[in-house]
Amino acid sequence: MATKTSAPRAAKTQRSPRISNRDRILAAGIKLFAEHGPDATSVSMISEASGLNRRMLYHYFGSKEGLYEEVLKAMYDRMNSVDVDLAHMLLPAEELLKKIIQGYYRFLNENPEFVRILSWENLRHGRTAKAIDVAAVKAPLIKALGVSLQMGARDGRFRSDVDENQLLISCMALSFFFFSNQYTLSMLLGKDIHAPRLLEQRVNHVTQLILEGILIKQPTPA
Amino acid sequence: MATKTSAPRAAKTQRSPRISNRDRILAAGIKLFAEHGPDATSVSMISEASGLNRRMLYHYFGSKEGLYEEVLKAMYDRMNSVDVDLAHMLLPAEELLKKIIQGYYRFLNENPEFVRILSWENLRHGRTAKAIDVAAVKAPLIKALGVSLQMGARDGRFRSDVDENQLLISCMALSFFFFSNQYTLSMLLGKDIHAPRLLEQRVNHVTQLILEGILIKQPTPA
Repeated sequence: MATKTSAPRAAKTQRSPRISNRDRILAAGIKLFAEHGPDATSVSMISEASGLNRRMLYHYFGSKEGLYEEVLKAMYDRMNSVDVDLAHMLLPAEELLKKIIQGYYRFLNENPEFVRILSWENLRHGRTAKAIDVAAVKAPLIKALGVSLQMGARDGRFRSDVDENQLLISCMALSFFFFSNQYTLSMLLGKDIHAPRLLEQRVNHVTQLILEGILIKQPTPA
Repeated sequence: MATKTSAPRAAKTQRSPRISNRDRILAAGIKLFAEHGPDATSVSMISEASGLNRRMLYHYFGSKEGLYEEVLKAMYDRMNSVDVDLAHMLLPAEELLKKIIQGYYRFLNENPEFVRILSWENLRHGRTAKAIDVAAVKAPLIKALGVSLQMGARDGRFRSDVDENQLLISCMALSFFFFSNQYTLSMLLGKDIHAPRLLEQRVNHVTQLILEGILIKQPTPA
């Protein structure tokens, strides 16, 4: 092992071999853009938070806007990995929808930066997201959901008029809104809606609503 | 009628008797806070947009933050009038839920400022909304929904385990998200989701999902 005094550079590299300067700037960007939004975050703030010279930011990302685009891509990549996992499971629609709702709630709960950055981005009229192939991110899951809904409809379990695009948007809406609007929602209910028990109640309500919502119903005898 | 030349002040008052200076500043505040957010909007911008001296803003609202609080209250008042109308209708749950969904979609479509200001406010951790009694805004509608759900459950039409708070949050989520995230959603679907035909399709999907979601189902015979 290299000693700190004799070889400080090598020691530093050995101690955190996986965190490159580029990743350090990216991580600072994610944190600051999420908190303050892309417009109110300055290059100096990112430089200070990453502990790296501002010229390093220009070297790796060209500009603040360039870094922001990479941050947005990194956020979509995280979400994408959830979608891809779900798309590959080849599950019956009931199971797939349960896992989508649980997966989205877990992901958004663990990734508050994703929620905030997507909110900022929409307030900016999606200016930078245009550079990202958003459709490609969701396409595999939409396809998987379409196939499993068709199978369920053929088996006579599900309504055959449920559009997979609409249904996935509904799953996204029912999960995203709970996090993006958490402050006004907590005030509305007079309690912190992100307490674990309330989060669980919410996931149960949404899962049941979606599953019952697509089942074929027989009217109860009068 | 007063002529313009002989009595310009009186004529001006007669021509727009309902727009006070206070309302003019409030309207400029709504427009600018919605577009740029409360932090990036300056007193000079509001003064220029309203055509009124910045001292007028301080006179009526004390500070930019004071104006922003009034803007947020004005937004909640608009939404409140939708909720109060719905709460007073005493409708069976099917009809009430249909009208909630249609009413929310119409309101949000016609009031993009509401969507944006609520998004900004949540990104600011609900700092200013704390001054508003958000719970009181939704309470009458939650109560009305609770009563009509109970009646439907007693009649054997609805599941008896549907919580009115959860269901209203779902209606809010399914409508709000469609507007707040319109840019990334449009990219996801590869089309402008706010085209009238797509908006109508969306309202139909959500209405059906919610209504089917609370109905009691009889399993289809195997």
